Amino acid sequence: MNVDAVRAYFTSLQERLVAGLEAIDGTPFKSDAWSRPGGGGGVSRVIEGGGLFERGGVNFSHVSGVQLPATASAAHAHLAGRAFEALGVSLVLHPENPHCPTAHMNVRFFAAGGEAPVWWFGGGMDLTPYYGNKDDVRHFHGCCRDALSPFGADRHARYKAWCDRYFFLKHRNEPRGAGGIFFDDLNEPDFDSCFALTRSVGDAFLGAYLPILAKRRDCAYCERERDFQAYRRGRYVEFNLVYDRGTLFGLQSGGRTESILMSLPPIVKWRYDWRPEPGSAEEQLYSEFLVARDWI
Amino acid sequence: MNVDAVRAYFTSLQERLVAGLEAIDGTPFKSDAWSRPGGGGGVSRVIEGGGLFERGGVNFSHVSGVQLPATASAAHAHLAGRAFEALGVSLVLHPENPHCPTAHMNVRFFAAGGEAPVWWFGGGMDLTPYYGNKDDVRHFHGCCRDALSPFGADRHARYKAWCDRYFFLKHRNEPRGAGGIFFDDLNEPDFDSCFALTRSVGDAFLGAYLPILAKRRDCAYCERERDFQAYRRGRYVEFNLVYDRGTLFGLQSGGRTESILMSLPPIVKWRYDWRPEPGSAEEQLYSEFLVARDWI
Repeated sequence: MNVDAVRAYFTSLQERLVAGLEAIDGTPFKSDAWSRPGGGGGVSRVIEGGGLFERGGVNFSHVSGVQLPATASAAHAHLAGRAFEALGVSLVLHPENPHCPTAHMNVRFFAAGGEAPVWWFGGGMDLTPYYGNKDDVRHFHGCCRDALSPFGADRHARYKAWCDRYFFLKHRNEPRGAGGIFFDDLNEPDFDSCFALTRSVGDAFLGAYLPILAKRRDCAYCERERDFQAYRRGRYVEFNLVYDRGTLFGLQSGGRTESILMSLPPIVKWRYDWRPEPGSAEEQLYSEFLVARDWI
Repeated sequence: MNVDAVRAYFTSLQERLVAGLEAIDGTPFKSDAWSRPGGGGGVSRVIEGGGLFERGGVNFSHVSGVQLPATASAAHAHLAGRAFEALGVSLVLHPENPHCPTAHMNVRFFAAGGEAPVWWFGGGMDLTPYYGNKDDVRHFHGCCRDALSPFGADRHARYKAWCDRYFFLKHRNEPRGAGGIFFDDLNEPDFDSCFALTRSVGDAFLGAYLPILAKRRDCAYCERERDFQAYRRGRYVEFNLVYDRGTLFGLQSGGRTESILMSLPPIVKWRYDWRPEPGSAEEQLYSEFLVARDWI
């Protein structure tokens, strides 16, 4: 177990992600460094009103403490009170063009000391289209598969299914988007393999997402498409504030609110009991993309 | 204890509220009746794009079941498995004009059977201004005080303080709005007094809110004020989805999602680490109104 190596990879990943995103957007990301009273801190890289991204960010954080709060993890309640470190890179991008999907990527590492030290990796990436394109979604899932294929034959299928389960709005009976991959509590067979898998996921993101943006950024749209995008972004808000473990843990544990809520979209609309017109492009999102399916 | 009497009051309150709001808005509310597979149902009265209200609703619901879910109430875990009834009227109104505050009102009743039957009332109302006016806030708090004054000298002070504690965004260290009153678990000294207090709160709402709308509905505003309103509405979303017990209980217990999320504003904006200009009207909201104070 080597926290310094994880930290070095995460900080360099953040830099590479920002450089790739700045290149396609044409606008520099702002940089905000912050520190946490309890220990540690982070750097938020944020873009608003860019050429392509209406709002988004790439956050790095490394927090530590002498006593893990009891509320930190229901699944790991036995770790309460131990010294801990938590590191991660989180990215959410909300393009302005409704033909460009929203994307999310995260890689993270957790370690707790004590008599029997524990550690694990987690992460994943997923795509949330508004006006979906099947080739785009297939490409994204293909990149996810390629990132995981060196790590076992069933790895991609398991992490793809985990993503479908995790990014699901129970109160809507609806997936958040078109899926991707998700994993957590990864600590087998050993640190080096788990770290290698996590690096493979982080390194795969730009190749999975940028080609989609390049193909769709010049698609024409008008008020109708923007309106539907704003409506669907409401689902993103609902998921992140009601279900997302990272968001809730962050808000409840005194994390940096503005960095955590960087994930929320710039303009969002709610409308009572709205349904897409049968046969419309908007209905196609529901029937073709917001369904768990084998994309590859 | 008389559930029929509570139901009759709640349904008539919903009708009176809708009639009063339709009169000031000039637009009829839509009516949606729904039933719940597990038992019970409700009627949602909703307005969108009205003359005054951009979005809002007055919901009545009466749900019942043979077994209260274990997740229903952490504070009342011993009631899990009992037959129960839960009734309420909930109102949220988001005016279009940023000089008109958002308002919320709720009255509710819960009863569980079994060897030692229990029941309680809860409710309250609160005001969320964007460009606040001290006379308006004083008037609103005065109506709250008058509604409670027949029920004991310290009643208003206690319920006002409870409201300040409840409608608070911990992750922002910020009250949701300018407060009001909040109460829960009310079952003393007897059913009749508790019911009378709850009716007094429900009956006071229109008198507390409509005069504010009448005074502010014609105030001029432009894009700057609408923009700040949309930004501040983000806090309303954050509170309702992260903290509000009724919202979370409803979403987790299979409630009717569109009725529950009627509380969310029509257009909302998030922006990274935004701060109001010193000395601006926007800063005044923070310094003068988003502070727990004695308004009367």
